Amino acid sequence: MNATDILVFNGTILTMDGQNRVIPDGLLTVEGDRISSIRKNGKGSIKAHKEIDAEGGLILPGLINSHTHAAMTLFRGLADDLPLMEWLNNYVFPVEGKMDADFVRVGSLLACAEMILSGTTTFCDMYLFEEEVAKAAKKSGMRCLVGEVLYDFPSPNYGSVEKGFTYTKELIERWKEDPLVDIAVEPHSLFTCGVDLLHKANDLALNSDVPLILHVAETRTELEEIEKQYGKRPVQHLMDLGLLGPHLIADHCVYINESEIEVLAQHKVSVVHNPESNMKLASGFAPVPEMIAKGVTVGLGTDGCASNNNLDLFAEMDMAAKLHKVNKLDPTVMDAQTVFRMATIDGARALGLEKITGSLEVGKRADLIIIDTNKPHLIPMYNPYSHLVYAAGGHDVKHSIIDGSIVMEDRKLLTLEVEDIMEQAKEQSHRVREWVG
Amino acid sequence: MNATDILVFNGTILTMDGQNRVIPDGLLTVEGDRISSIRKNGKGSIKAHKEIDAEGGLILPGLINSHTHAAMTLFRGLADDLPLMEWLNNYVFPVEGKMDADFVRVGSLLACAEMILSGTTTFCDMYLFEEEVAKAAKKSGMRCLVGEVLYDFPSPNYGSVEKGFTYTKELIERWKEDPLVDIAVEPHSLFTCGVDLLHKANDLALNSDVPLILHVAETRTELEEIEKQYGKRPVQHLMDLGLLGPHLIADHCVYINESEIEVLAQHKVSVVHNPESNMKLASGFAPVPEMIAKGVTVGLGTDGCASNNNLDLFAEMDMAAKLHKVNKLDPTVMDAQTVFRMATIDGARALGLEKITGSLEVGKRADLIIIDTNKPHLIPMYNPYSHLVYAAGGHDVKHSIIDGSIVMEDRKLLTLEVEDIMEQAKEQSHRVREWVG
Repeated sequence: MNATDILVFNGTILTMDGQNRVIPDGLLTVEGDRISSIRKNGKGSIKAHKEIDAEGGLILPGLINSHTHAAMTLFRGLADDLPLMEWLNNYVFPVEGKMDADFVRVGSLLACAEMILSGTTTFCDMYLFEEEVAKAAKKSGMRCLVGEVLYDFPSPNYGSVEKGFTYTKELIERWKEDPLVDIAVEPHSLFTCGVDLLHKANDLALNSDVPLILHVAETRTELEEIEKQYGKRPVQHLMDLGLLGPHLIADHCVYINESEIEVLAQHKVSVVHNPESNMKLASGFAPVPEMIAKGVTVGLGTDGCASNNNLDLFAEMDMAAKLHKVNKLDPTVMDAQTVFRMATIDGARALGLEKITGSLEVGKRADLIIIDTNKPHLIPMYNPYSHLVYAAGGHDVKHSIIDGSIVMEDRKLLTLEVEDIMEQAKEQSHRVREWVG
Repeated sequence: MNATDILVFNGTILTMDGQNRVIPDGLLTVEGDRISSIRKNGKGSIKAHKEIDAEGGLILPGLINSHTHAAMTLFRGLADDLPLMEWLNNYVFPVEGKMDADFVRVGSLLACAEMILSGTTTFCDMYLFEEEVAKAAKKSGMRCLVGEVLYDFPSPNYGSVEKGFTYTKELIERWKEDPLVDIAVEPHSLFTCGVDLLHKANDLALNSDVPLILHVAETRTELEEIEKQYGKRPVQHLMDLGLLGPHLIADHCVYINESEIEVLAQHKVSVVHNPESNMKLASGFAPVPEMIAKGVTVGLGTDGCASNNNLDLFAEMDMAAKLHKVNKLDPTVMDAQTVFRMATIDGARALGLEKITGSLEVGKRADLIIIDTNKPHLIPMYNPYSHLVYAAGGHDVKHSIIDGSIVMEDRKLLTLEVEDIMEQAKEQSHRVREWVG
């Protein structure tokens, strides 16, 4: 019998498959980039080049951060607790106008380090200089879906929007065979992108068979602006433009009503919920329980570090579960298993990656994490989903495997020089201080 | 020159004193149980028996968990996402009816381990078999304010309420000279305690010069019950009973209106906010920004692990800051520094311990923690308050000193046998499973 590549054993496996199968004292093998077997009980005679003892902990699908702006790690804590327009006009826009590829490279590497350390194995990004984000993901060994942000004003990366489309096409072409990196077309939002841009973006996404991603109805201001400019609400505007479809990923969706939720469900549009950002920026309460009830696929995102201020999906899960309970005055909404599905298989489905990742099933790519539960705050354990959503944190992730490669072992990153990245991040922060004056 | 006991250096000191003084590259010395000096710059010729290098991190007052039920760590994740009455009737009440001193001993030790590991140095507790909680705190080296819960039905600890008063008096007598343990009189709530009990409790608190602590207006159900039973709202009922005063600590205060906030402020009643519990149990939004605006002292608590499900005050701070922003649709409310004050000096003030702890000032007891900021999720650092509230977690606490003694060094607990406690907690959890069937 040949040896398998990796054997993970001695842990409870939460598969997040269609039946939410849980396998106590489970065992999982990896061959190449795939999961080759999952079963119950001890390792017996299985031989492996590498064995990972989960030590009684939890073996989980890697988490999926379905919406972020990775390089904004370099703006973490630069400005908080401010009115939205002051925050945007005095901090975000000035610094984004001055950034360059090197800034995005460093910020993205820092983000990848933080994400792996907190259990994320796949992320979806929208930002500038996105080639650097793809390279950072590739270097770190992370799976990603990334796209260059497009809008109707000049970009410090590509200049005019025509060049933005060229840049996006080049991204699609360059990365199309990559096992880890996928590209999306990413117009910023309805209030920064005119009708022409949105049509072109949609055509490019459909013709290239890649997702179309944009911010939708994030704030009340946006809702009012779209109503003023087009005489209709954002979802109606999207529908009239012909943008609704299974290729569309709509980030936020805070200001949508019952009938709009039905429209999104009918068109199989996916939504990404970002509770911490919606709370910190005081955007509002996205109607997530209602969306899930109507069958909309909802993933979970951290948004960027300027409005969170971390990339820890465990904190995001906790917030998602609790926010909707208090908003609805109903402790039964957004139960722990539902929330954990948002951060795993539903996130994968939202990003169109459900055949690749998001659950532990034979034949899927081996994207998995192992949680050390031998800590005071995770003892005793009556229900693993409860612990993951309400008690655990990213620091409880001990090992991480992505696409069949071990990227973190015993909390040590194997793909990134973390000390060097942190030094570079500090240097970039000096530039930021100069930019904001 | 004699050597000082402990020297902490090479970190930014956030004093949380009256001026919120921040001392970059600060140095702090401890003599016996007190802070003996705080100043800027390198350690020079100071000699110490023990030196702690903060390695460029943050030196902070230890955090204060102003409301918890420590032993409920043993119910963590036992039952979540349930309607309140189902949760209480099918889980909480049955298990609480069967517990004993050994259960509370183990659960409290587990809680102390978790609290120290996440930066808490002082906690305020309400539960059964509270002598065991005091002993656990003492053993772990934690500062606490604890009291036996009193109500109008038999307790598995003391039996009838008369014996509960005897038990409380004995607690007060037994611990009165202790440097770490303080005792309070703790009737459970207005809906579980009749007028006689409340009058007696208030008299005992006033005569013994200790705080009176109870849950107030936590849920809408409670509000309605009090209105039905007494024909008035909870704060009015408290006022008519003569319970309002600087000795009263009111936990939760979710259902209080503007005029009631003024009444609490006038009577110098302290309030403890428990956002995660209020969210998870879907209790509601406590009007904390309004209370602070009117001058009410508001501390921060985790509540028990059955409704949170952890004791990490960093997560609680994050939640407190974000919850009120989204509730008010205003990103400027509950700024990071205000929230950090709730978890430090305002918590100390709420518990009547402001002369002892809650800030780093010469002459106060040496209760302090050191945060390791050399991690990807805390880099770069533009604003330390922002990082503490929005980016850090309890696991970032590296060292902890309480009352001049080092209780955690480099994340190792020096006062508790954590592996042994976790084993005992697992054993107790088997009993819990039997109790709930």
